[in-house]
Amino acid sequence: MSEQEKLPQSSTPDGAAGSPGDRRRFLKTAVGSAIAAGTGIAGGALAATAPLQHSEVRHWDGETDLLIMGSGIGGIAAAIEARRQGMSALVLEKFNVLGGSSALSGGVCYMGGGTPLQKALGFEDSTQAMHDFMVAASGVYAPKEKIAVYCDGSLDHFDWLVENGVKYAQRFSAEKELSHKAASLYYCGCEKSYPFRNIAHPAPRGHVPPAENQTGGRELMTFLIAAARRLGADIRTEVDVERLVMESDGSVAGLRVMENGRTLHIRARKGVVLAAGGFVHNSEMMASYAPDLNRCRPRWGHAGHLGQGILMGMSVGGRTRIMDHGFSVLPLYPPEDVLKGVVVNGQGQRCITEDTYYGVMGHEILVHQKGRGYLIVDAACDYPALDYRVVIAARDDTIAGLAAKLHLPPGVLEETVAYYNKYAAQGQDPLFGKAPPFLAPLQKGPYSAYDLSPEKAFYAVQTFGGLETNVDGEVINAWGEAIPGLYAAGRTSAGIPVSPYYASGLSIGDGSFFGRRVAKHAARRKA
Amino acid sequence: MSEQEKLPQSSTPDGAAGSPGDRRRFLKTAVGSAIAAGTGIAGGALAATAPLQHSEVRHWDGETDLLIMGSGIGGIAAAIEARRQGMSALVLEKFNVLGGSSALSGGVCYMGGGTPLQKALGFEDSTQAMHDFMVAASGVYAPKEKIAVYCDGSLDHFDWLVENGVKYAQRFSAEKELSHKAASLYYCGCEKSYPFRNIAHPAPRGHVPPAENQTGGRELMTFLIAAARRLGADIRTEVDVERLVMESDGSVAGLRVMENGRTLHIRARKGVVLAAGGFVHNSEMMASYAPDLNRCRPRWGHAGHLGQGILMGMSVGGRTRIMDHGFSVLPLYPPEDVLKGVVVNGQGQRCITEDTYYGVMGHEILVHQKGRGYLIVDAACDYPALDYRVVIAARDDTIAGLAAKLHLPPGVLEETVAYYNKYAAQGQDPLFGKAPPFLAPLQKGPYSAYDLSPEKAFYAVQTFGGLETNVDGEVINAWGEAIPGLYAAGRTSAGIPVSPYYASGLSIGDGSFFGRRVAKHAARRKA
Repeated sequence: MSEQEKLPQSSTPDGAAGSPGDRRRFLKTAVGSAIAAGTGIAGGALAATAPLQHSEVRHWDGETDLLIMGSGIGGIAAAIEARRQGMSALVLEKFNVLGGSSALSGGVCYMGGGTPLQKALGFEDSTQAMHDFMVAASGVYAPKEKIAVYCDGSLDHFDWLVENGVKYAQRFSAEKELSHKAASLYYCGCEKSYPFRNIAHPAPRGHVPPAENQTGGRELMTFLIAAARRLGADIRTEVDVERLVMESDGSVAGLRVMENGRTLHIRARKGVVLAAGGFVHNSEMMASYAPDLNRCRPRWGHAGHLGQGILMGMSVGGRTRIMDHGFSVLPLYPPEDVLKGVVVNGQGQRCITEDTYYGVMGHEILVHQKGRGYLIVDAACDYPALDYRVVIAARDDTIAGLAAKLHLPPGVLEETVAYYNKYAAQGQDPLFGKAPPFLAPLQKGPYSAYDLSPEKAFYAVQTFGGLETNVDGEVINAWGEAIPGLYAAGRTSAGIPVSPYYASGLSIGDGSFFGRRVAKHAARRKA
Repeated sequence: MSEQEKLPQSSTPDGAAGSPGDRRRFLKTAVGSAIAAGTGIAGGALAATAPLQHSEVRHWDGETDLLIMGSGIGGIAAAIEARRQGMSALVLEKFNVLGGSSALSGGVCYMGGGTPLQKALGFEDSTQAMHDFMVAASGVYAPKEKIAVYCDGSLDHFDWLVENGVKYAQRFSAEKELSHKAASLYYCGCEKSYPFRNIAHPAPRGHVPPAENQTGGRELMTFLIAAARRLGADIRTEVDVERLVMESDGSVAGLRVMENGRTLHIRARKGVVLAAGGFVHNSEMMASYAPDLNRCRPRWGHAGHLGQGILMGMSVGGRTRIMDHGFSVLPLYPPEDVLKGVVVNGQGQRCITEDTYYGVMGHEILVHQKGRGYLIVDAACDYPALDYRVVIAARDDTIAGLAAKLHLPPGVLEETVAYYNKYAAQGQDPLFGKAPPFLAPLQKGPYSAYDLSPEKAFYAVQTFGGLETNVDGEVINAWGEAIPGLYAAGRTSAGIPVSPYYASGLSIGDGSFFGRRVAKHAARRKA
C-alpha cells in the first residue's frame, strides 16, 4: 500500500481533493454502476456494500485492533485514542491525500464551559450555558443525550486536542466570520442572536488554529495526523474499502478492501469504524433522501462523500436518522454591513433576524420559506461590486419600485421596510430582536434586492444524515441494539449537527469528540 | 387460528381497535421490552424483529403463495389481487378485528383522470391534470415515478374497486369536508386553492362509499374484505407476526408467527407483504424520527401502528425514507365560514391561504411556522360555542387589543388585518390568493384568536415514513436492489403520501393501488 501522505492544498468551493483527473476517474469507477435496473428507485447505490460472511474469507491478509475507514477528523481521532488506549490502529483512506472534508474545512471545533483559551481571553462560560444554547438552537431534533455528553466532556476535549499537538493562538476576533489569520477564538454561531442571547449567556466557542483564508482545517488535521503517526497508528492511502466482513453471530469481523487491484481481507480484533463522510456527492441519495439540500450548490465537502460508509452500515442492518438534514449555508456576511438590511420571504414579509448564523439563515429560506427570499439593502449597506456569492434580483431608487420589479404583492414590501425603519431608528427590532449593531433604517437609494433562492444564491451544502449511533459511537440496528464491533463517526453517523446548523465547529467537534469515544469503547471490548 | 372477523364499530380520535383492555394488554406485551440497556438511543424497538435463517426452522407449519402481514387496505388489496392472479393468499391480522387504520379512516380513495363517477356527475378531468396537481402539491419530496404510475392506472383502479364490490353513489357534495351521507364524490384536497388551481384544472377526485360521519372506511373495507373472502383468500385474526425467515441467498422464505402462545413457521412461496401500518403509536420511533409530528395529538390510526413491519424490513437490510413525514391535520373547517378569517404566524404576519386543505394547513404551522400560529376571526365568522377542536387564545373588541393580549409585536396584526380587509372588500387576496367565497373583511367585534400550536389545537397525526419500495412494492436494500420476495404496502412503505399531505384519499389510494401491484409482481416470480 502506498504510504505517501499529503494534505489537500486548498479549500475550494467544490471541495475536491486530488487532481480533477483523479476525481473524475474515481467517480467513474465508484458511482453509478450499481443501481439495479428496473428497481425504479431514485436512491443511489455504490457497487459493493453488501456484507461478506467470515466463512467466505479464505484467509486474513492483515489484522489490527481498530480498523478505520476514512482519515477525516472522526477516523484520525479514533486512531489517536486507540493508540492511547494501547490498541493497534489502521486507517484506510481512499484518496491519495489525507484529512477528508475536515482538512478542507475551516477547522473550527465547538468547545466551551470555560476552556483555558476562553479564560485566558477573559470570557466567562459554563457547561450549562453551552448545553442550554445547543439544545435550544438545535430545535426539535436536538440529540439531547449526545449534547449532554459532549458538553460535559468539552474541557477535557480541549486538553486532549492540545495534548495531541493542536496549537491555538491567544487571540480573540470579534468578526462574525473569522478572517483574522492570527486569532483562535470567536463567536462562531448564533449565540448572540435573538432569542438565544436570552436563553443562555453567550460565549465565544469557536476554537480554531490560526490560519489564513479559513484554512484552519488543514492546520488542525496536520497536527492530528502527525500525532496519530507519532503514536504509532498505521495510516494508508489509496485503499478502497468495499465490504464489511461479519461473523455468524452478527458481530463485525473486518473489512474487504481493494488496493492496487488486489482484494485484501483485514481482520479487526476490536472493531471497525466507518468514518467515510456523508453523501453530498451521491446524487441519487441526495435526490431521494434530501431533496431540499439537493437544490443547493456548491456541494461542500470532500469528493469521497459518496455515502459508502452509510450504505455499508445499512447493509448489516444499521438504522439511519435525519437523512434530510444538513447544512445549507447562505453566507450573507461578510461584509457585516449588509446585515443592516432586511431579509424577506416570497411575499415581501420579513422572516428572520438578519444577524443570525448563516446556517440558520440558509435553513430558514430553504425549508421554512420554501426556497424563496430576498435580502433588501440600501446604498449605505450594499455589497461591493462583483461579489460572487450573491445574485441581484432587482435594483430601484424606491422600495415601491423594487417591489414592483420583484412582482411582490402590492404594498407589502413598503410596509415591511417602513415598519423596520421606524423601529430601527430607535435601535429596536420588535419583530425579530436583531442586535443593535445591525439595526439601521434603509433610506438611501438605490435599493437592491438579492435573490436568496437556492437556485440563484451561493448555498454551501453538506449532509448530516447517517447511521444511528449511541454515545459510544456504536451503530444501532433495527431492533435497537448495538451491532457488536461496528462503529461510525463523523458524518457517516447522525450526531450533534442537525438542521438548522447553528454554529461552525459542531461537525468537527462531533467527529473528534465521538471518534475518541469510539476508541475508548472498543478498547473495553473483548477481542 | 381464530376465524372470527369483525370490523371496528367506530372511528374514534384515538383510533384504538378492540376493547381498551385488549389494547392495553397488547401494548404491554409488544412494546417497550427491547430497548437494549445502555445503548442510549431514543429510537424504539419491538421485541422480535430480528430475522431467522431458514436453516433455523425445523419444519413449516403451513405455506401459501403470498403471505400478508396486516389486514388494512394494502394487505387486503394484495390478497384480492393474489387470488385474481391464481395465487393462494394468507392474511395475518394481529387484532381480533379486521381492516386496520383503513377501516377507521374516511375511506376516501384519490382517483381521477375521468372516472365513470366523475363523468356521470359532469366533471371533466384528465390524467395529466391529476398528475400535475399531485406533483406540484407534493413539493420537493414528490415521488414522481410512483405518481406517474398511479395516475396512469387510476381509471383501471376505479374499475377494479367496483369489480371487487365497492359501491359509490352517483352524488356530488360541494362541501370541503364530506359530511353528506349520500354523496360519493367531492373536492378532497387543495385542488381549488391557490396556487394549484392555476397549475392544473381542478376536479373532484375524492371517491368514497356513501356513509355517515366519515365512516366510509368501514364501508370500503367491508366491501373489500368480503371480496377477498369470496375469492378465496384466507384471513386470520389474532396472529402476531414476529420475524422474517430468510433463505441463505438473502431472499425471503416466510414468517415466524405466534398464535395462542404457539410459535408457527409459515412458508411464502411467492413473497411476504409487510402491510402493518406506520409507527404513530411507537413513542420511541416518533421521538427519534419524527419529533415534529410527535408534538401532535391525537394519534390518528389503529393501535397496531407500532412500526413492527418497518423494523422487520430494516432487520433484513431494507432502507427507509421520509421517516419524518406524515400528516398533521389541523381541521379548521367545518364550519367553512371561519376560513374567512386570517391565519397568522407567531409574529402576527399572515402566512397561508386559509382555504387550503387541512393537511397543508397543519404542515405549514407545525413545520414552516415552527409550531406557532393563530386563526383570527370576527364575530361574523366565529366557531359555535364549545367546539372541541379549537382553543381560544384571546378575545377582544379590537384587533389592537387582541394583539396586545397575544403579546405580538406592536402594530403587526393591525397591519395584517387592515391589508387583508382592504383587498377582501374588493374580493381579492394579493398575498395568498384565497378563493373569493372565503374572502370577507374582519370588522365585527369581538375578535377571537384561536391557538394553532400543536400543544393546544387538535392536530390529527399519522406517519408516512417507511420502507423504500419500487413501483412494484419490492423493498429496496442498502445497495439499491430489491430484496427478493419482500414487499411492503400501505404505511409500512414510503409511498405516494408525503409532507405536506394535500388531499384525503392519498393513503388509501396508495395502499390499494400498490397493494395490487405487489400481488401482480409476486405472481410473476418463480416459486
